Amino acid sequence: MQTLSQYREAFLSHLEERINATEPENLYAPMHYILGIGGKRLRPILTLMTADIFSGDFKEALDAALAVEVFHNFSLVHDDIMDEAPLRRGHQTVHEKWDLNTGILSGDAMLIIAYQLFEYYESVKFRDLAMLFSKTAIEVCEGQQYDVDFETRDDVTLDAYLKMITYKTAVLVGAAMKMGAIVANASALEANAIYEFGLNLGIAFQLQDDYLDTFGDQATFGKQIGGDIIENKKTYLYLKTMSFISDEEKVQLQHLFAIKPSNPADKIEQVKAYFISSGADVATQEAIEAYTNKAFIALDKLQIGQDKKEFLMAFGNTLMKRTV
Amino acid sequence: MQTLSQYREAFLSHLEERINATEPENLYAPMHYILGIGGKRLRPILTLMTADIFSGDFKEALDAALAVEVFHNFSLVHDDIMDEAPLRRGHQTVHEKWDLNTGILSGDAMLIIAYQLFEYYESVKFRDLAMLFSKTAIEVCEGQQYDVDFETRDDVTLDAYLKMITYKTAVLVGAAMKMGAIVANASALEANAIYEFGLNLGIAFQLQDDYLDTFGDQATFGKQIGGDIIENKKTYLYLKTMSFISDEEKVQLQHLFAIKPSNPADKIEQVKAYFISSGADVATQEAIEAYTNKAFIALDKLQIGQDKKEFLMAFGNTLMKRTV
Repeated sequence: MQTLSQYREAFLSHLEERINATEPENLYAPMHYILGIGGKRLRPILTLMTADIFSGDFKEALDAALAVEVFHNFSLVHDDIMDEAPLRRGHQTVHEKWDLNTGILSGDAMLIIAYQLFEYYESVKFRDLAMLFSKTAIEVCEGQQYDVDFETRDDVTLDAYLKMITYKTAVLVGAAMKMGAIVANASALEANAIYEFGLNLGIAFQLQDDYLDTFGDQATFGKQIGGDIIENKKTYLYLKTMSFISDEEKVQLQHLFAIKPSNPADKIEQVKAYFISSGADVATQEAIEAYTNKAFIALDKLQIGQDKKEFLMAFGNTLMKRTV
Repeated sequence: MQTLSQYREAFLSHLEERINATEPENLYAPMHYILGIGGKRLRPILTLMTADIFSGDFKEALDAALAVEVFHNFSLVHDDIMDEAPLRRGHQTVHEKWDLNTGILSGDAMLIIAYQLFEYYESVKFRDLAMLFSKTAIEVCEGQQYDVDFETRDDVTLDAYLKMITYKTAVLVGAAMKMGAIVANASALEANAIYEFGLNLGIAFQLQDDYLDTFGDQATFGKQIGGDIIENKKTYLYLKTMSFISDEEKVQLQHLFAIKPSNPADKIEQVKAYFISSGADVATQEAIEAYTNKAFIALDKLQIGQDKKEFLMAFGNTLMKRTV
């Protein structure tokens, strides 16, 4: 095993080596730009780490890891257009820095290039990786569509919300890890177990992101606290609250989620009070705990040393910022 | 061999059977819509026909044919957004009927589903098909980018224009045929020869489209005669004219291509006169003839019966509306 920063460095030099097309410039410059402005590189690191976990050579997983990262950035470029987002990771989004058409077309090219990265593997592995990739990619599109649809619906259930975040976010975490397992020739049973681990950790991570958006510490969270409330986003916290409160309170909370006051401080405080008094805050923490534990239980199926299981659990705990 | 309408019917029932996802509706309804509003189905028919040419079973090529058609429609949906086109095949475009975000996202999903259709083939064929598909798809994106770039450039060469139409249009025709050859287990030499045939016929077809846009018969052409001149499109006819005329005439023609008069009849007549007096009209017909012949010469490399070669040439001549 390597350290996370060793994986990251190996990944970054591979990225620079492999993604090198330059012409036509308006197609490829946005690609180099979005892939270059950083991010934690969490997904590709998971691919490399998982190859090592299954006693493979992480270097052989570099192209699969890069495919995952290129796909992730494709989805960011197109999602940012749909969300009309001006900024990504503190920099201008592609459609802002260039224009709409450039965002669409360079995104399309990134999706294709992600597939091409599997061409460095022989045909059986190529097929296994590309099939997992396609299944995951279509789920990510479906998750994005549900997310868009939910904005204008007020009948979203908790199950539907969980499906949405599973598709939009968690499946790619599971797939990133399973690709590492495939490259390392792990058995189907083990590859599926590590997928379960990644998937459930991904769900837990997204629920924690929802939780911290309201209850996090401004200094460490990175985004504006209360942002989801300001945007009237029907997160797990909101939906859980709605499932707990009386019809009368529902009307009041729904009213709060229909307005966008210019000074949102009062609204944030009132909504937060509902989240707490209903018990949704505690229920959300319990759900985070439950998905994290589900991830850890998936590890029981793996025929790997106890040290590697502990490595994965430590990684999970770091990710969930748990102090266990 | 089957007749073209038999291929078309087999293709259409396969399309209906395979493309059947429905949820989320806003993702899949646009896909069914664009795939349902017709078109000549030229590319998938070419895939099926080529499988038969190489003594394969055309039915085995149905999924590859469908991948080609789904990809083609993906590119139409995204191109129509970029061109702000309200209509496609006489119907509303996807982004008009739904909205921009739906056009982007359902297009993305179509690109992924095209790849998934190769999963019906075993791993070596899957890899061969997917690699050809990715190479072609990235070239189509590059062609589209060059087309967008050329709109605001006045230094486009004939070679650059030919590269643009080759990438944007012709490579998919070549790839559609090569996929049929791959499915039918043709040799690499034969698969490449049929690619050359399709590619050169695709270039000839696009040049003929340019030619007919100015010199065609309104009754049979289907689009508005003079449309390219009205839109100041730097087609082969225009670029060839520019390469033939004096510097003084160039200034005059460039002026005509900088204006968009509300009544374009005079402009069309003047530009058309340049196309004819310069000899560009004849030169364009010669180029069409040269690419068609290049396509036919590629057939010499094929180890197929003379009857099949004549079938392909008859198809080419029909496509080029030649009365040979």
